[in-house]
Amino acid sequence: MFSSSAANRANRALIYSHTGSPSSVLRALTYPALPPPAPGTLNVRLRLAPINPADLNVIEGVYPSRPAPTAFPGQGEVLVGGNEGYAEVQALGAGLDGRGLSVGDWVLVTRQQAGTWRTAANVGADEVIRLERKGLSEVNAATLTVNPATAYLMLTSFVDLKPGDWIIQNGANSAVGQAVIHIARARGVKTLNFVRNRNNLDDTKRELTALGATQVLTYDALEDKRAVRAQVAEWTGGAPVRLALNCVSGPTTTALLPLLGQNAHVVTYGAMSRAPLAIPASAQIFRNLTAHGFWVSRWYLEHSVQEREALMKELVDLKIPEPVHEILTIGKEKKDKEAADSVKAAIDKMLAGESKKKVLLRLEEPDD
Amino acid sequence: MFSSSAANRANRALIYSHTGSPSSVLRALTYPALPPPAPGTLNVRLRLAPINPADLNVIEGVYPSRPAPTAFPGQGEVLVGGNEGYAEVQALGAGLDGRGLSVGDWVLVTRQQAGTWRTAANVGADEVIRLERKGLSEVNAATLTVNPATAYLMLTSFVDLKPGDWIIQNGANSAVGQAVIHIARARGVKTLNFVRNRNNLDDTKRELTALGATQVLTYDALEDKRAVRAQVAEWTGGAPVRLALNCVSGPTTTALLPLLGQNAHVVTYGAMSRAPLAIPASAQIFRNLTAHGFWVSRWYLEHSVQEREALMKELVDLKIPEPVHEILTIGKEKKDKEAADSVKAAIDKMLAGESKKKVLLRLEEPDD
Repeated sequence: MFSSSAANRANRALIYSHTGSPSSVLRALTYPALPPPAPGTLNVRLRLAPINPADLNVIEGVYPSRPAPTAFPGQGEVLVGGNEGYAEVQALGAGLDGRGLSVGDWVLVTRQQAGTWRTAANVGADEVIRLERKGLSEVNAATLTVNPATAYLMLTSFVDLKPGDWIIQNGANSAVGQAVIHIARARGVKTLNFVRNRNNLDDTKRELTALGATQVLTYDALEDKRAVRAQVAEWTGGAPVRLALNCVSGPTTTALLPLLGQNAHVVTYGAMSRAPLAIPASAQIFRNLTAHGFWVSRWYLEHSVQEREALMKELVDLKIPEPVHEILTIGKEKKDKEAADSVKAAIDKMLAGESKKKVLLRLEEPDD
Repeated sequence: MFSSSAANRANRALIYSHTGSPSSVLRALTYPALPPPAPGTLNVRLRLAPINPADLNVIEGVYPSRPAPTAFPGQGEVLVGGNEGYAEVQALGAGLDGRGLSVGDWVLVTRQQAGTWRTAANVGADEVIRLERKGLSEVNAATLTVNPATAYLMLTSFVDLKPGDWIIQNGANSAVGQAVIHIARARGVKTLNFVRNRNNLDDTKRELTALGATQVLTYDALEDKRAVRAQVAEWTGGAPVRLALNCVSGPTTTALLPLLGQNAHVVTYGAMSRAPLAIPASAQIFRNLTAHGFWVSRWYLEHSVQEREALMKELVDLKIPEPVHEILTIGKEKKDKEAADSVKAAIDKMLAGESKKKVLLRLEEPDD
């Protein structure tokens, strides 16, 4: 499957043979150029790929989905890191005439855990979706499939929201939270955003408001139950709030359930508090509250290429702002050991919580 | 609206003017025979009505639905106790020719909190549904709309169960739990039933098994997580369990969630533990567990007379066993004071938890 004569450059991937702490198991591998793609497949050049927190959980072996093993010459089967990122079509196999793909197109690999931390891969035509660029930045393209998709799908899958309707979310300053604010505003939906109290609270409120947040509150406001209900009723004009998006769980989330009206839905996509969500039976029985989970990986598994492409088209049209980020370029001159050390240093910084910036990997094709 | 000349017998109702402890606020009232029914309405003779636990919460004022006030001659507006029971059609108003109702028919008043603890009422034709008797006993007829309806609707509204599928329920020895076992068996659905450990556990297991329970376990079995999962997997042959019916909530309910498979639904209709249900985010996100509430009162409000009649037809055809019960007859010769005292004594016994038997009220028309 690999041929060193098919192109004049080599490739590089960040791989691991068994799960464990990223700094102990991750290593870089230089591998030959890909052979021409088999019928029904294409070769892609992966351009930019984020290091998402879930990617680290996958490497640690504590995430429910894992990559399929990939065979590299002389390595046997290994796992390649990375789940998200954008790629460029390099070569098309036979039989893809009707597929609407051309060399140079930007594509996303929507197969979960496809191993985006590498320079080149051969993928099935059904595993990719084509991006209409429309001025999309590389950073946007590399970060569409997880956070913006999660935000968009949670806003559209559970409640038929109309312009003027309100939703509630916690963890509103997270990447998904910010995308929720942006998308909700674009759809005329008002957002009541909860964030942690913090030193720079006024800055956070200003940033979220600039992004389109209708109101921003801290969890402290939930302590005075009557006051917060009265405040919310004043803002909403008494209209029932029917959707809450939750990435925190635990007691502060239970405390915001009384702000929801009849027939509401709370959608959990995280548990930053590391506590479960306790739901009073009365809210479920007498107010018909339904509690769902959302996992974007499941959505991709359960939806067709056409549906995935339609989603990406929506997200591109929504012109979601780039996340605050830094790009880690792994230069072509680096040896595999240096390359791996650079990535591991960035991961250690992430795990230590030292930076709020999203790190995106730009792997250069190594000097052969 | 009332006329003492329209019939030669008086009526009696159990009423209260303000909410509070049943033994302090409940009283009996003798009232005249009803006038002939206005167009579109009918007069019914209420024959047998249970005293359900929720009825006491309604009188206490701690239940989310309340009866509409009824005016009685010389009493002004008062509230009448009772939500369930069967009645017989006594007289039809004009304009009901196509409605399929005849004098002598058995009907159920499906308007919530209609005040079934009285001998006669005038009701709108849309508030009643006609029962096909088919050998139905009076006790069955009087107890169809709450517990069997709850059991049937929870089994059919959330998951499309096929014969051979398994469900889990807790509080399996409750009236709803027993109806669940009966209905599930009739549909070929297997039940894994949790009950409290108790002195007569073997008797309980034998009774539930006779009713059709596939397996009966106590909550103690949940303490050894691996063992109970292995046991359930053995029984189900590894097929995913996709529905759990919950009237207990609290920690034992959280502990049974791992027994559910992917895409399962937990439906809460009670909280006998008086604790909320804590749901781990991982179960919602990665196993797509959805948590619903169910309240049969809401179902009646949201469904048409035709749908309610179709439900009752199903329940009659299912030949659900009578609940263990005793009938409290309030004889015609009793004065109102004595009548009220008899009912209050039965309620006090219920509240003290002294009897597991459902008490059904048979109010006789008092000597005028």
